[in-house]
Amino acid sequence: MNDRDFAPLIGEIRKNLEEKGFPVKTQRDFPNRSEVIEIIELCSRIMFPGFFEDGQVYSVSSSRNFQSLFAQLDEKLYGQLMIALKNCECKEVKECARRTEREFLERLPYVQGMLLKDIEAMFDGDPAALSRESIILSYPGFYAVMVFRLAHELYTRNVPLLPRMMTEHAHSLTGIDINPGATIGEYFCMDHGTGIVIGETTEIGNWCKLYQGVTLGALSTSLGQQMSGVKRHPKLEDHVTIYSNASILGGATVIGEGAVVGGSAFITESVPKNARVVMKAGEMSIRMKEQKD
Amino acid sequence: MNDRDFAPLIGEIRKNLEEKGFPVKTQRDFPNRSEVIEIIELCSRIMFPGFFEDGQVYSVSSSRNFQSLFAQLDEKLYGQLMIALKNCECKEVKECARRTEREFLERLPYVQGMLLKDIEAMFDGDPAALSRESIILSYPGFYAVMVFRLAHELYTRNVPLLPRMMTEHAHSLTGIDINPGATIGEYFCMDHGTGIVIGETTEIGNWCKLYQGVTLGALSTSLGQQMSGVKRHPKLEDHVTIYSNASILGGATVIGEGAVVGGSAFITESVPKNARVVMKAGEMSIRMKEQKD
Amino acid sequence: MNDRDFAPLIGEIRKNLEEKGFPVKTQRDFPNRSEVIEIIELCSRIMFPGFFEDGQVYSVSSSRNFQSLFAQLDEKLYGQLMIALKNCECKEVKECARRTEREFLERLPYVQGMLLKDIEAMFDGDPAALSRESIILSYPGFYAVMVFRLAHELYTRNVPLLPRMMTEHAHSLTGIDINPGATIGEYFCMDHGTGIVIGETTEIGNWCKLYQGVTLGALSTSLGQQMSGVKRHPKLEDHVTIYSNASILGGATVIGEGAVVGGSAFITESVPKNARVVMKAGEMSIRMKEQKD
Amino acid sequence: MNDRDFAPLIGEIRKNLEEKGFPVKTQRDFPNRSEVIEIIELCSRIMFPGFFEDGQVYSVSSSRNFQSLFAQLDEKLYGQLMIALKNCECKEVKECARRTEREFLERLPYVQGMLLKDIEAMFDGDPAALSRESIILSYPGFYAVMVFRLAHELYTRNVPLLPRMMTEHAHSLTGIDINPGATIGEYFCMDHGTGIVIGETTEIGNWCKLYQGVTLGALSTSLGQQMSGVKRHPKLEDHVTIYSNASILGGATVIGEGAVVGGSAFITESVPKNARVVMKAGEMSIRMKEQKD
Amino acid sequence: MNDRDFAPLIGEIRKNLEEKGFPVKTQRDFPNRSEVIEIIELCSRIMFPGFFEDGQVYSVSSSRNFQSLFAQLDEKLYGQLMIALKNCECKEVKECARRTEREFLERLPYVQGMLLKDIEAMFDGDPAALSRESIILSYPGFYAVMVFRLAHELYTRNVPLLPRMMTEHAHSLTGIDINPGATIGEYFCMDHGTGIVIGETTEIGNWCKLYQGVTLGALSTSLGQQMSGVKRHPKLEDHVTIYSNASILGGATVIGEGAVVGGSAFITESVPKNARVVMKAGEMSIRMKEQKD
Amino acid sequence: MNDRDFAPLIGEIRKNLEEKGFPVKTQRDFPNRSEVIEIIELCSRIMFPGFFEDGQVYSVSSSRNFQSLFAQLDEKLYGQLMIALKNCECKEVKECARRTEREFLERLPYVQGMLLKDIEAMFDGDPAALSRESIILSYPGFYAVMVFRLAHELYTRNVPLLPRMMTEHAHSLTGIDINPGATIGEYFCMDHGTGIVIGETTEIGNWCKLYQGVTLGALSTSLGQQMSGVKRHPKLEDHVTIYSNASILGGATVIGEGAVVGGSAFITESVPKNARVVMKAGEMSIRMKEQKD
Repeated sequence: MNDRDFAPLIGEIRKNLEEKGFPVKTQRDFPNRSEVIEIIELCSRIMFPGFFEDGQVYSVSSSRNFQSLFAQLDEKLYGQLMIALKNCECKEVKECARRTEREFLERLPYVQGMLLKDIEAMFDGDPAALSRESIILSYPGFYAVMVFRLAHELYTRNVPLLPRMMTEHAHSLTGIDINPGATIGEYFCMDHGTGIVIGETTEIGNWCKLYQGVTLGALSTSLGQQMSGVKRHPKLEDHVTIYSNASILGGATVIGEGAVVGGSAFITESVPKNARVVMKAGEMSIRMKEQKD
Repeated sequence: MNDRDFAPLIGEIRKNLEEKGFPVKTQRDFPNRSEVIEIIELCSRIMFPGFFEDGQVYSVSSSRNFQSLFAQLDEKLYGQLMIALKNCECKEVKECARRTEREFLERLPYVQGMLLKDIEAMFDGDPAALSRESIILSYPGFYAVMVFRLAHELYTRNVPLLPRMMTEHAHSLTGIDINPGATIGEYFCMDHGTGIVIGETTEIGNWCKLYQGVTLGALSTSLGQQMSGVKRHPKLEDHVTIYSNASILGGATVIGEGAVVGGSAFITESVPKNARVVMKAGEMSIRMKEQKD
Repeated sequence: MNDRDFAPLIGEIRKNLEEKGFPVKTQRDFPNRSEVIEIIELCSRIMFPGFFEDGQVYSVSSSRNFQSLFAQLDEKLYGQLMIALKNCECKEVKECARRTEREFLERLPYVQGMLLKDIEAMFDGDPAALSRESIILSYPGFYAVMVFRLAHELYTRNVPLLPRMMTEHAHSLTGIDINPGATIGEYFCMDHGTGIVIGETTEIGNWCKLYQGVTLGALSTSLGQQMSGVKRHPKLEDHVTIYSNASILGGATVIGEGAVVGGSAFITESVPKNARVVMKAGEMSIRMKEQKD
Repeated sequence: MNDRDFAPLIGEIRKNLEEKGFPVKTQRDFPNRSEVIEIIELCSRIMFPGFFEDGQVYSVSSSRNFQSLFAQLDEKLYGQLMIALKNCECKEVKECARRTEREFLERLPYVQGMLLKDIEAMFDGDPAALSRESIILSYPGFYAVMVFRLAHELYTRNVPLLPRMMTEHAHSLTGIDINPGATIGEYFCMDHGTGIVIGETTEIGNWCKLYQGVTLGALSTSLGQQMSGVKRHPKLEDHVTIYSNASILGGATVIGEGAVVGGSAFITESVPKNARVVMKAGEMSIRMKEQKD
Repeated sequence: MNDRDFAPLIGEIRKNLEEKGFPVKTQRDFPNRSEVIEIIELCSRIMFPGFFEDGQVYSVSSSRNFQSLFAQLDEKLYGQLMIALKNCECKEVKECARRTEREFLERLPYVQGMLLKDIEAMFDGDPAALSRESIILSYPGFYAVMVFRLAHELYTRNVPLLPRMMTEHAHSLTGIDINPGATIGEYFCMDHGTGIVIGETTEIGNWCKLYQGVTLGALSTSLGQQMSGVKRHPKLEDHVTIYSNASILGGATVIGEGAVVGGSAFITESVPKNARVVMKAGEMSIRMKEQKD
Repeated sequence: MNDRDFAPLIGEIRKNLEEKGFPVKTQRDFPNRSEVIEIIELCSRIMFPGFFEDGQVYSVSSSRNFQSLFAQLDEKLYGQLMIALKNCECKEVKECARRTEREFLERLPYVQGMLLKDIEAMFDGDPAALSRESIILSYPGFYAVMVFRLAHELYTRNVPLLPRMMTEHAHSLTGIDINPGATIGEYFCMDHGTGIVIGETTEIGNWCKLYQGVTLGALSTSLGQQMSGVKRHPKLEDHVTIYSNASILGGATVIGEGAVVGGSAFITESVPKNARVVMKAGEMSIRMKEQKD
């Protein structure tokens, strides 16, 4: 294609953007994806020393190694917070970034403690788990909840963009999509995990277990931002188990303590304590239309 | 293992390939995966300047930057088209590659326009979306439809392999599998998205919304290429909503305008306009067999 | 944050780890993720020469190229086996690693043969497949079964960690989670694949076909390692087809030869030969609660 | 080392910098080394298509490839010029950067033409040269003069920092240090080249030949910037040959047309036309003190 | 080449090594080249913040940035010291590595102070220097003395291998070879620098200036280790200037204060204060044999 | 710069190339620089196992490691030979490449043996050498002779381009430029080495020692290819020592056994056995012109 043809294309592309309210800026001011990934990696190496390294590390748990990781995290997180908070309401962005970062670092032991409990739940819940170590090393359900618990700490401190970029990174790697705004209790277990969706206003109690493909979602709306802040996602009390591909929808839906929801169930109303809910399946049928081969 | 043992293994491996009709070639003639990914990246940086960069860019929306991106895209796309079209029916591969590439570049403003409408639909449909920008930055549903709309332009110009490699790249990152042959209208919204499958002959109207795990698929067949070109996937009219993990199968299946299909529904027959289809769920049951702990 | 604050955080983090039985080690002794990925890549390049290269290769199927790939695989696999087997019960780790590696290499032609049959099944089962080549190049269902069949050879030789790290790599790329312990017959076809879960003690016959989102899983348990080794996942006889998002659970559940299970079905009991099982769907209902817009 | 100890060190380091007039800035505003290297690479690929690529290029000399290279060069050079010119005297940095860049690009054919003549001289002067191609591919003398001729175009347009960073990159690779301010005629040949130094105000005529280790330098001074702009380096008229490790110093020193200076000569006064200057060497002597072994 | 041929070659190669006293070890225990380079880089970024970064740094001179750099340096240096000191005579390697590292870090402000003085000397001595900043950014003479001064601190603390690997890295980049054992005073200036050699027992006073190609070396010996520790290289008193390609050899050779040695001089005896030494050059001669063209 | 301006520039650039006999090709057919570097690295890792690795290697000297290195070298060398020999006179390029490669591999033990002797000479000749190991690890003189001895094996087998690209890589890293055609005896020692030049038809006996900046070169010519094959460079008999920056030129020049040539000597005539040649230096002079400060 002769380069003379590009000019009208560029014109159209710019016009499209402007018409939709995307001013053509000369500089980018979004957090940096690769820095966000490094922030996650540094946190994981601090909380679980020796499990997330890939090259040679000579003194995995030495103070010097922890110091180095903290200092790097400190620098990178501050940089990304400066970008993310640029348009926030606080008067003094630097001060806000510094405070948020300090608070985040101070929460790392708490987050780590929560994750150690999650590991217990996953180990008890999975006979195929060879060891607690193998869960940290290779379970996507663990990775996703780790990133969520980190991102949640930024979400609750009103940091825009960054928490979502973190959970979307985990989403891309694991297929598990947890909104950083969700509230998730102790001893949380996701098995296999691909396709799990946990919405922004979901509340999950302690000792809950979700299988792959489970949705804790909202009913469809086209009201967009008018619904922002409204509770739109369900609540799970303690000791709830939800089997694969079940969907629990709606802000008023509560799954009572100890209830078990069967696979593929589509639930838009509350379920009492200790109930067992299954789809009416199992009967034979010949109604399924087949492709005529 | 002593290297003397490799020869018989190599012999067996070659024999296997030959028996199945994979001639042992001395040279590879497939499009290059990493080039395909760069093509996607260049297109996305052209259509949404400033959203897909990760390093330093000094003049995101300047003409010089657009020119540079177009020129790089021009070169890379032509190279991969030359490979992909090598065995196509056109007499003159170079001419064919050049024409296809020019047409593709000229469609970028149209594709961008469609995507800007998709962003509107996603913003209206998701109270958790902080801004339109955040959708471009981090929503897998947006990324998947972007790559689909690009790949579709090559598919409709009879380019082999390349379009599928593009959508499979998006599939790997997002868990959303859209065949580049599908027909998708305006203001299309996929929420969360993991596990969505949209088959080759699917038709989707305007303002449709799909949740994670939705299948718009074909009934099973073992006829393979004999069915190629036959309409095998469903049609969705305008304003259809399909909840999580529902499956709509078959080429004669039509979901009427404004219909809503509940989660986990398994649909192999048409659904009338404005219908609400749900699985008979919600009743309590104790029939679910449990693992005796 | 002033670096003086890190010390107490480090103290807490260490205490957390110790309390949960994660001794703070000075050296890491886990297999190396990037090496594991290279092992998969080398195997795939040996079995399907020319399909998994991305740079320039001058003599894809020459003996010299095979020799080079085998020798590299030999070295890398031995290194990772030495790490993985460090704590195994065998008296002589080196001897064990050497034997396991030799046996694994000798199985490559067998694994390749099985995969060539899987390609046949996928080609017959998918009218959208342009060619057998395109399946190897871009089908996630093929990639996942390839990695599974490789990992399974290590699993059956009692190698810890490594097989799971291999299948989790495929899981991350494809959304398909096959435990390396599963038993899978010939001509196996997974279409689209995202969300498929196949548990450790699953048995699958010949000519079976699974769609995206299908779970072949266990019933929930909190007994953890006490259930290890017990058959907990279902058996599929030959020629079984399972549609999208169906879940088949439990170690006593058998899906009879030629049976077809409809989408979203939740099955915890056996299904006879040639049966057609569908959820009672299709009836219209207005019971679905909607978000009041 | 306990991290508490860093604070006083940091204090000392900052104090040192401030005392010497290096204000502790929060942001770096120097041209980017890796960008500078890419600018050189793009220029070399434009002027000598096919000689400086290392990966696969499908259409080395096609218009599309040239366009792509020019557009990338355009973008990168502009970015670095913006940084380099930030503190220059021109009123409008953008305008200045744009003009400088346009002028530079327009000089590329001239620079290329000069280099093609240099290749002739090197080919005629080196019986070991297999072909003109091999000179472009692997002769450090060619690489150094190429980078010099590019940098000189920026130097004469008063661009600070950038030209020197370019020639220092070549210096690091080749051991040849040519100040971008030097004036060098046509058909210039440097053989082997390591250790050659050509100072800022040097003038070199046509058809000159320098061997390794030759210095065209200034006499020592401690006047620094007071001497800036003064002619401090020698002049070589046409057809001058200087053998290895000879030093020609001083701004009033002129080596006349056709003169030959022998190796290791140390020249601080002018040499007439066609002269042959050698050190009084060759006589045997036993005065050299030896290490007593 | 058929792989069967490798075995005898391997046998020969091993035999060669063993005969020369290189036992065929199974594990490498040398410091890591790329880590050594990173150590240099971290030191340079600490001492000259903002001059050696190439990517985006948000707060070049903030405490957080210094802390991060110190902590990383701390970790990396300790790791390499552990390797390098493995065979040293100290009883407790860990203790020795820790002490050496602490002492090294504490010397950084001193080293920086020396380098700031070197910059002064280079600025005063080079009319072509645009600014002190440009010296740090692009002068090989500065880079070489910086690495020397760092390496010297390890050399004087009896660290084997590491100091030499550091100066050889600088040697490779700049062509300047300074043995880490040399003693170099304040305000040291090397101009251009390629080919400078400064031997292990050299002593250099304050305000000395060396041009490219200057050797401060030893007389040839074949006594090897028997001469180790003996003073074999010359001494330069204060304010000495040595022009390009001059060689000053021998441990008893002293160049007196204020002396100037002309280019290409070959000096094996002492030179008195304020002397001017030049080779008897400048006279015309026709004795130089020429290639008959 | 507006992209419309590129077309005339491209036109000029192409015209320049064509006028000078560089046909504008569409495909590059030169050996690949990065592959050449890998070939050197593989050879060095085979000959000196454990000295040139930078990452983790588990079994440096095991047969499996050697096999892997040989097989990789085998593949890469063959690929580059195919490119380099494309235009050679042999009828059957493949056959020629295969034979050359086999012969090269079979010479590796011989080359290694020569290098082990060179190490002896360097160790005996340098009191600063801590150990033989440190010479392999960090001495540029060793690296340069290693690459030369490898390249020489290809040169003597009439491989074009490749040998020179190898020695130019070493030249760039070490500043030592040895033409692959030179003949160099046993126990060869280059100390420091920067600036050494050894021409194509040079002959060097056993136990010779060269210091930095020594040129063994040709007299200047402008006859180019007419002189190709003619002996143009000097001969050094056994046990010759040449001090820094001396130049020995001409094909008829012979330095007799045991002779020592002082630094900066410029020699164009033969020197008898055991002679000591020095420049007439050392006398004081005030003739050196100085910059008036």
